[in-house]
Amino acid sequence: MNRQQLINEIFSKKTFLCVGLDTDINKIPEHLKKEEDPIFAFNKAIIDATAPYCVAYKPNLAFYECYGLKGMVAFEKTIKYLKENHPNHFIIADAKRGDIGNTSKMYAQTFFEEYNLDSVTVAPYMGEDSVKPFLEYDGKWVILLALTSNKGSHDFQLTEDQQGERLFEKVLKKSQEWGTTENLMYVVGATQGKMFEDIRRIAPNHFLLVPGVGAQGGSLQEVCKYGMTKDCGLLVNSSRGIIYAGKDKDFAEMAAQKAKELQQEMAIELEAIK
Amino acid sequence: MNRQQLINEIFSKKTFLCVGLDTDINKIPEHLKKEEDPIFAFNKAIIDATAPYCVAYKPNLAFYECYGLKGMVAFEKTIKYLKENHPNHFIIADAKRGDIGNTSKMYAQTFFEEYNLDSVTVAPYMGEDSVKPFLEYDGKWVILLALTSNKGSHDFQLTEDQQGERLFEKVLKKSQEWGTTENLMYVVGATQGKMFEDIRRIAPNHFLLVPGVGAQGGSLQEVCKYGMTKDCGLLVNSSRGIIYAGKDKDFAEMAAQKAKELQQEMAIELEAIK
Repeated sequence: MNRQQLINEIFSKKTFLCVGLDTDINKIPEHLKKEEDPIFAFNKAIIDATAPYCVAYKPNLAFYECYGLKGMVAFEKTIKYLKENHPNHFIIADAKRGDIGNTSKMYAQTFFEEYNLDSVTVAPYMGEDSVKPFLEYDGKWVILLALTSNKGSHDFQLTEDQQGERLFEKVLKKSQEWGTTENLMYVVGATQGKMFEDIRRIAPNHFLLVPGVGAQGGSLQEVCKYGMTKDCGLLVNSSRGIIYAGKDKDFAEMAAQKAKELQQEMAIELEAIK
Repeated sequence: MNRQQLINEIFSKKTFLCVGLDTDINKIPEHLKKEEDPIFAFNKAIIDATAPYCVAYKPNLAFYECYGLKGMVAFEKTIKYLKENHPNHFIIADAKRGDIGNTSKMYAQTFFEEYNLDSVTVAPYMGEDSVKPFLEYDGKWVILLALTSNKGSHDFQLTEDQQGERLFEKVLKKSQEWGTTENLMYVVGATQGKMFEDIRRIAPNHFLLVPGVGAQGGSLQEVCKYGMTKDCGLLVNSSRGIIYAGKDKDFAEMAAQKAKELQQEMAIELEAIK
């Protein structure tokens, strides 16, 4: 999916919500555990219920890999189901990959050829040759970690260099030599508040993937106030806040309800930039 | 495997070689491609041929994930084969993982419970809560990226902060608040030469996993000169230089030959610190 198609989806559906599929077998409703593939059964129900309210899905690889092959089967079935039934949703492999060039090339092949997904999250620590192989696919996206939502983001990402430039700012600047607004987004945590102003100073037009609304405590209004562009420029993710909204047989309706609430708040924000 | 067991293996076998299993279907000998599982067939032969000359194996996850489920089956079979037939070899999942706390916890579960491996490589960009969940397993190791072997390592890892401390040095210092010499190693590329002196000033006793000898051009002698400790303190990895030493039916013998050559050089280095 290219940038313009994504923007069109956002404005026509009046939402920039991404639903995170961090599916934990210990947190899904009891009745699903009898299913042959409980993780896929859960995802399918969540996807069908929330699809009208979001433009993207973000399966988090850790939650599938941790069950070995069984987990990867659930991942593949989820991807296949999404592509067949909701082909206009943007799919993000939240995998935080990144390695030397010849290895990153294999990871790019995994997510862009083997699974044919739209995008993958990438960690910047290893620099240019660890990121570039992911940028060599037409219509595919790198979502590079810049300023993450977690407490540990302060350990290294805020370190200032001798010119007063913080590491996340260096990542934003340097990576713009590698990719464009058409194939590169950044992860910026919703918990970072006013820092979105600093981000937008360096990356005024790039899309940002924003986790941390909901369970992690970030504010949608603040993110929009400081981070929104005329093209929206945001994909705001909620995982636990949506998918575990209910614990019983009505879990999918509860998830839809939560997604709808966020969509309605987002519609107001989108109306304001029209 | 704990630190003392690893040291014992190194001194009794007179080697600190790690063989990287970056198995690429396009690079394995033609005759193996007819096998039901060519990747596993290749790994099995390489492992049996090189086991006397190394103390560790390092499967690189990218090379398995890129074939989807089929690749992960080959990975699991390789791990199982190693554990059953070469139980005294240290196994490193080269996965470069790292995410917010609750997600890193799932990755730790993947590599330390689901696969029961000895160690996993972790990327430091997201800080403390992205690394700590991996440190909570007795007898298991985090191998944290510090100064990598690739060209892109210069993009961010060498950035000096306002006190003149470089990012990789900050990673080395900070992470010693999280882990110990018993559960934390660092990745330092063999291509970094004299920088090992700087590393050893901050981390005098930690084991270092050193990729980059061979195909990437690093020198074993230089690594030992500046990086070796009285406990050895090094696991030097070679992947392509060993596993693709031969392209025909004698590929395993050729790999054994290359591994043996490195082992013999290593024996001399170990003799020097006795």
